Amino acid sequence: MASGPSDDIESLISTMARLPGLGPRSARRIVLHLIRKRTGQMAQLATLMSGVAESARECLTCGNVTQSDICPICQDPARATGEICVVTDVADLWALERGRAFKGRYHVLGGSLSALDEIGPEDLRIPQLITRIADENASEVILALSATIEGQTTAHYIAEALEPTGVTVTGLAQGVPIGGELDYLDDGTITAALRARRKL
Amino acid sequence: MASGPSDDIESLISTMARLPGLGPRSARRIVLHLIRKRTGQMAQLATLMSGVAESARECLTCGNVTQSDICPICQDPARATGEICVVTDVADLWALERGRAFKGRYHVLGGSLSALDEIGPEDLRIPQLITRIADENASEVILALSATIEGQTTAHYIAEALEPTGVTVTGLAQGVPIGGELDYLDDGTITAALRARRKL
Ligand SMILES: [Zn+2]
Ligand SMILES: [Zn+2]
Repeated sequence: MASGPSDDIESLISTMARLPGLGPRSARRIVLHLIRKRTGQMAQLATLMSGVAESARECLTCGNVTQSDICPICQDPARATGEICVVTDVADLWALERGRAFKGRYHVLGGSLSALDEIGPEDLRIPQLITRIADENASEVILALSATIEGQTTAHYIAEALEPTGVTVTGLAQGVPIGGELDYLDDGTITAALRARRKL
Repeated sequence: MASGPSDDIESLISTMARLPGLGPRSARRIVLHLIRKRTGQMAQLATLMSGVAESARECLTCGNVTQSDICPICQDPARATGEICVVTDVADLWALERGRAFKGRYHVLGGSLSALDEIGPEDLRIPQLITRIADENASEVILALSATIEGQTTAHYIAEALEPTGVTVTGLAQGVPIGGELDYLDDGTITAALRARRKL
């Protein structure tokens, strides 16, 4: 009888293999690496994960990942600049924060509009964005979305949806390469594109 | 003040980023994916990891990953065929088991000889292999090592070291492409190469 990994190791490998960017082979390598390390790296990783699993949630206002109902950015009065930067997901928010160029607040969509995947405006917190503009008396909404077809479709939809509110809607300047995913850019490019943003 | 991921999320990301094949960007994607999943996948992964971290150890005989002192293959009397298949690491053992062509037992080196990395014969269980050949009255040692320079250097070293024991030493047949790492091959190729093994 063939005898591969034990059941619990096999479960760990197959669970890890379903993570984005991984597959069975890379999951096997990672699990073996963790087993070989005598330094307890696997136990440490397990502890970190269960801590984050318990504490991490979405900010009720902006959708940022946070450990309280409202994230530190939404709680910080210095960031009530009247500018709301709309991003596709939290990885993009982190990328912009690394650039340190944006001083306002964010709105995380959690995805892009997609007829194929049946993702509509309600799935992307767009109604909540419209409510926030009034509540926070926002003067400008910056659409920091990827220069992909989905990103730009989403940007055009939001720009139209916001027209009745009278808020200024801007997009990132050229500098985001065509077809480029925001999260792949270096921090300098993202910062430059933000500074040179244009009215849509 | 810039506000990226919280401290515990940042620790989780940086720990994951050091895993083989990952980096900061892929670690961020995985962690965000796990946070977004409402199905408790992160807690499940944490539980699986801490279970494996507690139970997984090396077989005292062959170096396979196991949950007892001696692995199921070394415990199985049906696998006492007198053939010992030497592999670089446990991923290769699993690959051979998936092929179901080998009915004997294994010996896991845990690496390849490397002057640069100061990995010598004692680091690779080679003395233990010599002891096993006498203890288990082995008739054949199959060197199922990668067709890389390190793998072949290690194979030649072992073949010489085993000469005094009189055991037949074989290597995998052609079929393993030059420069090819064993663990990258499909299971059929590995099985064919094993069946056509030749005396060294
Ligand atoms: Zn928030
Ligand atoms: Zn064993």
